[in-house]
Amino acid sequence: MSAINHQVRLAARPLGLPTSSDWSMTEELVPTPGAGEFVVAISYLSLDPAMRGWMNAGASYIEPVEVGDVMRAGAVGRIVASEHPGFAVGEHVYGAFGAQEYALSDGVGIFKVDPALAPLPTYLGTLGMTGMTAYFGLFDTGKMQEGDIVVVSGAAGAVGMAVGQMAKIKGAERVIGIAGGEEKCRWLIDELGFDAAIDYKRENVAAALRDAAPKGIDVYFDNVGGEILDAALTRLARGARIVICGAVSQYNSTEGVKGPANYLALLVARASMTGMVVFDYAARYPQAMAEIAGWMREGRLISREHIVDGGVSAFPETLLKLFNGENLGKLVLRVGED
Amino acid sequence: MSAINHQVRLAARPLGLPTSSDWSMTEELVPTPGAGEFVVAISYLSLDPAMRGWMNAGASYIEPVEVGDVMRAGAVGRIVASEHPGFAVGEHVYGAFGAQEYALSDGVGIFKVDPALAPLPTYLGTLGMTGMTAYFGLFDTGKMQEGDIVVVSGAAGAVGMAVGQMAKIKGAERVIGIAGGEEKCRWLIDELGFDAAIDYKRENVAAALRDAAPKGIDVYFDNVGGEILDAALTRLARGARIVICGAVSQYNSTEGVKGPANYLALLVARASMTGMVVFDYAARYPQAMAEIAGWMREGRLISREHIVDGGVSAFPETLLKLFNGENLGKLVLRVGED
Repeated sequence: MSAINHQVRLAARPLGLPTSSDWSMTEELVPTPGAGEFVVAISYLSLDPAMRGWMNAGASYIEPVEVGDVMRAGAVGRIVASEHPGFAVGEHVYGAFGAQEYALSDGVGIFKVDPALAPLPTYLGTLGMTGMTAYFGLFDTGKMQEGDIVVVSGAAGAVGMAVGQMAKIKGAERVIGIAGGEEKCRWLIDELGFDAAIDYKRENVAAALRDAAPKGIDVYFDNVGGEILDAALTRLARGARIVICGAVSQYNSTEGVKGPANYLALLVARASMTGMVVFDYAARYPQAMAEIAGWMREGRLISREHIVDGGVSAFPETLLKLFNGENLGKLVLRVGED
Repeated sequence: MSAINHQVRLAARPLGLPTSSDWSMTEELVPTPGAGEFVVAISYLSLDPAMRGWMNAGASYIEPVEVGDVMRAGAVGRIVASEHPGFAVGEHVYGAFGAQEYALSDGVGIFKVDPALAPLPTYLGTLGMTGMTAYFGLFDTGKMQEGDIVVVSGAAGAVGMAVGQMAKIKGAERVIGIAGGEEKCRWLIDELGFDAAIDYKRENVAAALRDAAPKGIDVYFDNVGGEILDAALTRLARGARIVICGAVSQYNSTEGVKGPANYLALLVARASMTGMVVFDYAARYPQAMAEIAGWMREGRLISREHIVDGGVSAFPETLLKLFNGENLGKLVLRVGED
């Protein structure tokens, strides 16, 4: 192969929102697989709020991306060269292949995916890590039970849309989504079957939660942090479980993270706030994927991907959509052919 | 009876630290019991940081004290008149009798206590609600296991001193107390058997925790909130449990509660933060009291009461000791004879 592999590398650790100077675009020759290796031509890149955290220095639940490295990204693609006995040319795979057009892999941590069962981008969303995050966060960390009142923030995002639908499927009495803008809120109710939606850009969230969940919240699945988390804390039912999945409102703050000033509501409500990281559930992914795939086949769970064209060079600007609320559903960048 | 009952009533809702104008001193005739009632002459009043919360308006885990009411307080005393078949003159009892010298009761929520088994003030401390709080907070909410690294803040206070000792008794690998001042820290180690003590007035708590708990914290029992909670969040072990028992550093804040800015450490550590209220465990008090009494008999658990003389009129100034860190052990006000 003598094709060129276009890559997006971290050039500097951002302060606040990443800017173009935080990235560098590089070109390499597409690698040639050695024994036990294969090369993937990437079709779609996953864009995730968590990426912002990976760009910071310091220990977290995963190593930071080093300055100069290809940006870490989940991706799906098709094998175009292989010297690996378990992976054949033409097969489709999911892996953390990075923000580039081609990736070399030894197969560790790689899943095969079947484009005949679902479109490739779905394996980055509801049938991928975001679906897993919703599933284990809601049912395992959040211990959702039939009859619960469930509230999810970032509800029109990749994880949030799955959380709300899964909660309904498993018998939540009421599912309330918090999202920004009328279009998203309408979509949650009309298309996804949420019972209520709160537009945080227009409404007082604490007051709207009082109206939408008069008995209080049993499970609050938090993707955003900040003022919305504080509002939810004022409306907890006794024994409520708060799932800390992310805090997209805080990732680009240059003034430090805003802690939840209402955290003593945990005491009043005998409630818990628990952090989760999807990787801990890797052993149970197959079972969860099978269950989710079943719900999708039955038409009970809708997946929506927000697909951006533009190739790998559009990665930096596409990432920003997550932080200005432009995406509806799972944000995906098309990098190559299916 | 024509004796006088001196009382302390809430006169105004305080802003910040309570001042003398937030209280009024009243006198009434000692009541006469009707059928099914008895009168207690109060020996000791319990002083608790939670009292500051009861003085605020608004819903919490318990109704606020209304302006004009006798201040709510746990107390032990002796029955001096009775028309109740279950309670005889001369018996000693514990109850929420209020900040006064005499109380009328119908027996609901009242426990008999035996001054031959333990001094009366101990029934307000380690054998009372503070001991119950430590026990159920540590073992139930905090799910402490043998081999855990346990950290407790407010460690020289009533709940904290019990938490640390109970953790050692149940096989914690290491117990670290956070307290203010050298005397308290020395007492924790020399008298109570803590493995380490951190003087938050003199040390950087996060750095000191790194040294004292290099493997990270499994259970953090928080009585104080604020910057110490934030410091503990930086040192959590995987799967850590934070028990939110109180937040004495925040109760008198006039600028609102400081939320824990490091709460996303819950995600990194897959940790939980859970609120507890001791009243939920009322059905299990007898079993816990028996176990604690056994530890005390065996000399494995030391109770210390900080007894202030001065009668009920000293209640307002004595309460402030909890907020300026003057008490060592359980703060108790002597109001009358044993």
